[in-house]
Amino acid sequence: MIADKVAIIGAGMTRFHYSLHLGKSTRELFVEAFLECLESVDKGINHKDIEALFIGNTVNEYFEHQSHLSSLLADWSGLLPIPSTRIETACASSSTALEIGTLAVASGMYDIVLVGGVEKMSTLQTDEMTWALMSGMDQAYECPLGVSNPGLYAMMAMAHFEKYGSTWEQLATISIKNHHNASLNPKAQYQSEIIDTANKIAQKKGLSFKDEMDFLQSPSNPYVAYPLRLFDCSPISDGASTVILASTEKAKNFTDTPIYISGLGHKSGTMSLHDRNDFTTIPSAVEAGKKAYKMAKIEPKDIDVAMVHDCFTPAEMIAIEDLGFFTKGEGARASEEGRTSLTGEIPINTDGGLKAKGHPIAATGTAMVHEVWKQLRGEAEKRQVPNANIGLLHNIGATGGTAVVQIFKR
Amino acid sequence: MIADKVAIIGAGMTRFHYSLHLGKSTRELFVEAFLECLESVDKGINHKDIEALFIGNTVNEYFEHQSHLSSLLADWSGLLPIPSTRIETACASSSTALEIGTLAVASGMYDIVLVGGVEKMSTLQTDEMTWALMSGMDQAYECPLGVSNPGLYAMMAMAHFEKYGSTWEQLATISIKNHHNASLNPKAQYQSEIIDTANKIAQKKGLSFKDEMDFLQSPSNPYVAYPLRLFDCSPISDGASTVILASTEKAKNFTDTPIYISGLGHKSGTMSLHDRNDFTTIPSAVEAGKKAYKMAKIEPKDIDVAMVHDCFTPAEMIAIEDLGFFTKGEGARASEEGRTSLTGEIPINTDGGLKAKGHPIAATGTAMVHEVWKQLRGEAEKRQVPNANIGLLHNIGATGGTAVVQIFKR
Repeated sequence: MIADKVAIIGAGMTRFHYSLHLGKSTRELFVEAFLECLESVDKGINHKDIEALFIGNTVNEYFEHQSHLSSLLADWSGLLPIPSTRIETACASSSTALEIGTLAVASGMYDIVLVGGVEKMSTLQTDEMTWALMSGMDQAYECPLGVSNPGLYAMMAMAHFEKYGSTWEQLATISIKNHHNASLNPKAQYQSEIIDTANKIAQKKGLSFKDEMDFLQSPSNPYVAYPLRLFDCSPISDGASTVILASTEKAKNFTDTPIYISGLGHKSGTMSLHDRNDFTTIPSAVEAGKKAYKMAKIEPKDIDVAMVHDCFTPAEMIAIEDLGFFTKGEGARASEEGRTSLTGEIPINTDGGLKAKGHPIAATGTAMVHEVWKQLRGEAEKRQVPNANIGLLHNIGATGGTAVVQIFKR
Repeated sequence: MIADKVAIIGAGMTRFHYSLHLGKSTRELFVEAFLECLESVDKGINHKDIEALFIGNTVNEYFEHQSHLSSLLADWSGLLPIPSTRIETACASSSTALEIGTLAVASGMYDIVLVGGVEKMSTLQTDEMTWALMSGMDQAYECPLGVSNPGLYAMMAMAHFEKYGSTWEQLATISIKNHHNASLNPKAQYQSEIIDTANKIAQKKGLSFKDEMDFLQSPSNPYVAYPLRLFDCSPISDGASTVILASTEKAKNFTDTPIYISGLGHKSGTMSLHDRNDFTTIPSAVEAGKKAYKMAKIEPKDIDVAMVHDCFTPAEMIAIEDLGFFTKGEGARASEEGRTSLTGEIPINTDGGLKAKGHPIAATGTAMVHEVWKQLRGEAEKRQVPNANIGLLHNIGATGGTAVVQIFKR
């Protein structure tokens, strides 16, 4: 039995950003996150205690023409000659790295391992980036038709509008909520409320919620793929995140507050949307959730705080339904009603989510872990959820070709 | 303790080739290898018995502009919704996938998993290929100086010639031996002796060994990077290889002849050659070997048959020294003396090696496993090593940024 056999003893990440990291390479971003991770270990740790490295990275081939990153990052982190492995499952790469690291420790092969993710995206222009990220979808049967990630999630939104009557205005409240949370997170790319942006553009102060919605429906928030506008989409980001795992036995030497890995769910789904019967759900995520809940022996209602994969606003709507937090079809309305806010019944994306914290693709999974770790330890400062004891992570590769759901307990 | 907790119950691979697979994509190559793998299981297996997929692939981003291969291959293999993960450690990707698969089974998470590797290289021209494969070396501090893989291994050869007095003529005997072995292997890309090629070009029959060496030193065998000529280099290949792993307990349901995974060695080294003190050895490989021997509780002299990473002839020379089969400096002479031939004291690369079997990068590791599996089961036909009970695999990423050594027992 693997549940609770492995614990998190430290976590660190760079700020996620675009222009801030322009002069830094993947290796520099990673080392920055790693050093913070070492510092975060309560009773201290020597980097020589680390026995293996599992690093998520999606397509650095396009970003820096650099593959074989595992070895390079082990070297730059002063970790040679430990074994190092790159893991790739599109946008779920680093949560998958955490899974592999957990299994490696649970197997008895290692006591302490470093897992993480890194992505340096600012090297490409937007058009090149769209092309690069399309490699995560089916190049033979889906992409040749001209569709890219925003278009696919737009179709999922439209199907949900049609089937359940949810609206774009409801989706907008997801973006507003995530920007609010990011405004409280010093690691976030956009530390601003949308209303602040609206005020700035209008050169006014104190605009109302109605003004904010008007702003979001104005040309200042242009369409990317109907019905999704710019503020429905996560940005291009640079960043890295790292987590140190230890066997439960060893963890006590490093911290009195380990965070246990209680549930590991990981499933694959069809790469192409057209191979699915229903666009309003991601079947692999539903299955991954069931697996994680079963392993952790809990139910959706037991989760105190959750980070979900909001690469686009409809993705968060679908996620919170697929995970069983809300009845199918209720996700967008639940957001509109504030039920997923910091003070709601199930706070979602307390760190600002992919939307506002930023989405350096393969760094996202372990950055979600970073936030869950902060929340469960009561260290999330202004965005702290009271009495958070059980946290969940939901990380999707592309449109659900991969789905990872993980559960953590204090 | 992980040694002998996991066993191989089946293995399958495509023929490695260049032109033969021109019309096939990565997914088709993989499924071909997988179907043979299913067929190879002695007592039969249902593909529904497989619980997870770990797939090695290096840089399909360049070859097919397709990442997220794990999910795609799980789908095309009829394995949805099982978890699937892509592993990348340059040329050692699929042996690393086997390691991860072994740890996953040893952890108790799964009983039966599929591991493998696939590479579709024939989509690129030679110049593009050189550029693509350079991504596995340090793009910041090594490649900008204009060096590529053949040049780096050429430097390693020159250092060995200088330090130990080994010669190019001795290296040529490695190539001659591996082509001979490949001539006995129906999965090999080049199923021909070099002497046959020499005969063909000379339009003669029955050329002598001296004629063969004259041919290898003629313009028909041009320099790639001095002192390495064309026949010192592994070719560009398409191919896939797959292996099914099971817990030792479950393995008995599928075969009476499981092959046990007894030693797992994996170490990282500096990406750049200029960061090393000595070019005549690959430190990560020496360390990985020690780890594997220790875990398997054996010594180099106990190995009956070994597949080593001969991407270039000096790589095989260095490998058989690093692994302790021969004293440092003796590797090339040992080859010249026939001590590594099929009938020698330690048969090396019985399948033809990367040189003549072919080297579809990430398919190489589990293809080595395929040959070890055949040899230990006594099914290697004309290239069978008598009484082979313990086999070894040595798989290098780039010039040693990654090194994997694994030991298998009957």
